[in-house]
Amino acid sequence: MTEENYRVLDRDSLPDYLAGIPAVVEVLGEGADLEILEIGDGNLNFVYRVNNASDANRSVIVKQAVPYLRMVGEEWPLSRDRMTYEIRALTLYNEVVPDLVPTIFHADEDMSVLIMQCLSDHIILRLGMIDGVVYPKVATDIGNFMADTLFKTSHWSMGSLERRELMDRFTMNAELCKLTEEFIFTFPYMEHDSNYSNPATDAWAKEHVHTDTQYKLDVLAFKDLFVSKPDALLHADLHSGSLMVNQDESYVIDMEFAYFGPFGFDVGKVISNFLLCCTSHFHRAGGAEYREWLLEQIPVIWNTFESRFLELWKAADDSAMLIDGLLTADEAERLRQEFMTNLLRESAGFAACSMARRTLGIAGVADVRDIEDLDVRSKLEIANLKLSKRLMAERNTLSSIDDMLAIIRDFYSSPVL
Amino acid sequence: MTEENYRVLDRDSLPDYLAGIPAVVEVLGEGADLEILEIGDGNLNFVYRVNNASDANRSVIVKQAVPYLRMVGEEWPLSRDRMTYEIRALTLYNEVVPDLVPTIFHADEDMSVLIMQCLSDHIILRLGMIDGVVYPKVATDIGNFMADTLFKTSHWSMGSLERRELMDRFTMNAELCKLTEEFIFTFPYMEHDSNYSNPATDAWAKEHVHTDTQYKLDVLAFKDLFVSKPDALLHADLHSGSLMVNQDESYVIDMEFAYFGPFGFDVGKVISNFLLCCTSHFHRAGGAEYREWLLEQIPVIWNTFESRFLELWKAADDSAMLIDGLLTADEAERLRQEFMTNLLRESAGFAACSMARRTLGIAGVADVRDIEDLDVRSKLEIANLKLSKRLMAERNTLSSIDDMLAIIRDFYSSPVL
Repeated sequence: MTEENYRVLDRDSLPDYLAGIPAVVEVLGEGADLEILEIGDGNLNFVYRVNNASDANRSVIVKQAVPYLRMVGEEWPLSRDRMTYEIRALTLYNEVVPDLVPTIFHADEDMSVLIMQCLSDHIILRLGMIDGVVYPKVATDIGNFMADTLFKTSHWSMGSLERRELMDRFTMNAELCKLTEEFIFTFPYMEHDSNYSNPATDAWAKEHVHTDTQYKLDVLAFKDLFVSKPDALLHADLHSGSLMVNQDESYVIDMEFAYFGPFGFDVGKVISNFLLCCTSHFHRAGGAEYREWLLEQIPVIWNTFESRFLELWKAADDSAMLIDGLLTADEAERLRQEFMTNLLRESAGFAACSMARRTLGIAGVADVRDIEDLDVRSKLEIANLKLSKRLMAERNTLSSIDDMLAIIRDFYSSPVL
Repeated sequence: MTEENYRVLDRDSLPDYLAGIPAVVEVLGEGADLEILEIGDGNLNFVYRVNNASDANRSVIVKQAVPYLRMVGEEWPLSRDRMTYEIRALTLYNEVVPDLVPTIFHADEDMSVLIMQCLSDHIILRLGMIDGVVYPKVATDIGNFMADTLFKTSHWSMGSLERRELMDRFTMNAELCKLTEEFIFTFPYMEHDSNYSNPATDAWAKEHVHTDTQYKLDVLAFKDLFVSKPDALLHADLHSGSLMVNQDESYVIDMEFAYFGPFGFDVGKVISNFLLCCTSHFHRAGGAEYREWLLEQIPVIWNTFESRFLELWKAADDSAMLIDGLLTADEAERLRQEFMTNLLRESAGFAACSMARRTLGIAGVADVRDIEDLDVRSKLEIANLKLSKRLMAERNTLSSIDDMLAIIRDFYSSPVL
């Protein structure tokens, strides 16, 4: 990434820039009039939808990082390195899970620009789930996405040297890792200026979170894993706002947080987002029926993930961890079983952290935060904190996803509102 | 590291090369006649002692890596990257533990050359211990070395960004990490061409190591930690051959394996080397008295390490892991206690791996391997394997170093020979 080749694109300069990229011209049409729409509702980057003015189906997304936090402005500097890591992760995902991520048409680390497939027939999963929409394929798609991306970038799949070379391309995604360390694993569990505030929730957190030694030390153990357990290349921000879906397809987007971390982080974050939404539908229109659909997706996600992960593992050649002749078939089978049990427990712990930070930290989820009645909202928030604490406290009793679901169902059997 | 600035130095070219380095000229004397002695008995590099011909006290060590395995020749290529990491580690150690490592006079990554303090009044600890020599300071020096280097390069001391920058300078020490992964954590636990062979030992290993599922899976769990738990910058080859000592001083050398790994790896390796030597003195001349001295060093090493590590921790400012206001004083104290118990157990597991690999793998220790009587040697080897298995099996019962020592003493109370 260099400075001299960087300039911020805008509606005026985009057409010339795009005209110089043959792969993009092929999509948009040679010499076509272009419609350019700024669609970025994100906090970090500029995002444009660009299409052929006479054929809206010929379209691309242009995403560019600027060297500051877009939602605040130039007075909050933030390295545009983050686009380098999004480019690297999406490039890898285009190879590993091409059907589950947008196709890349062009990537330029110097310009911090990524040009990719426009998903105009899809909406953000979070918005659909808030509206109570059933997506038949999303759980299996997520499970497969995590299995392929996590297993294939891990030391159980890759050779030692090639794995270190891949890790080396993500180590310095340092600023965004630091955001996660602070905003997921630190600030929500203490008094901190950055935290969200809702009086009844604050009072509950003060009594039951900030002073719960075991829970705080458990969270710290998961922070330790996040900081210092590079199992695999994580998406690292895999919540329901990072999925674009419709009835037939699911696409994972926004991988700028990508870095090497613990297996359970992506899995736990996904599960927590189904739970946060489930809680919200005690108030929202989806009601019991939609809550049931949300809960049923959790074992589908896990079972898909687990069976695909194990399928890949059983078919794998020698790796940094295992070589032919070290373990008998029975020993390998026992290893894999114990591994998956640990991964399940780790995922439950990360889900617990994610639920707490989405409740107490600066970045909430619209599922709950957009509810205007502060009293209702605080009841849902306290429910999410209670469920977080239960998952954390009981995680090491889990032997199967059904065990986790039983805890969750038992929890929701008590009044939430 | 570039190719065009690299050339292999020899006795003829060394004087001119050294004359161009003011810091070295200052040590050796301007225009002095030089005596050059090749002293490298190592397997990897060229090592020369260079001194002023009329004042042998004015001397330096010149160490240069060549792009192949020195003990074999150019037909076994091995990247000279390893010297880059030794330079980086020793440079850091010169700041962090200046009294416990050789002073650097000059370092040149392009030339893969390191010029440092000559330790002419010191001998390799392993050789001294084989001869039954008591070194009063070595245990405390090792404990302090590990505490300072491990704590100060960890996420419990460093900030998030600076830690990642430091990690980034060691990630690609990939070839030497791969050697450790294979030769410590893989080959010794299976049939493999690279393994050492001694018929009685082989037969015992086949029955009690290669087929012990729990032990093998435990070793694999420690391999997982080694591959994927970058707690701190390890020396990563901290055995009794990497220490130069006399009655007053100890110096740690040969840090080319340096990389970010689990806290317990250096600690366990050090402990295992005292145990391997202790076993050898059931045959060697040191006898019961020297064995007792060796065993007594283990709690001295641990207690020095633990108290210095905790002293640094208690005095530490905000780190990647902890910020002021997150934990109460009591919570922080409990965290540190649980942390040290885990570190002790982890160290016991790594000690177990180290003892097994030094017995079954290609790289033995002279303490045992140099004993010519194969029958005696196999009895000592089998004792080391049995102790390895006990430490591994009982590691999670340990609450203190005294617990570990009790297991070791109990083990040695049964006949070894």
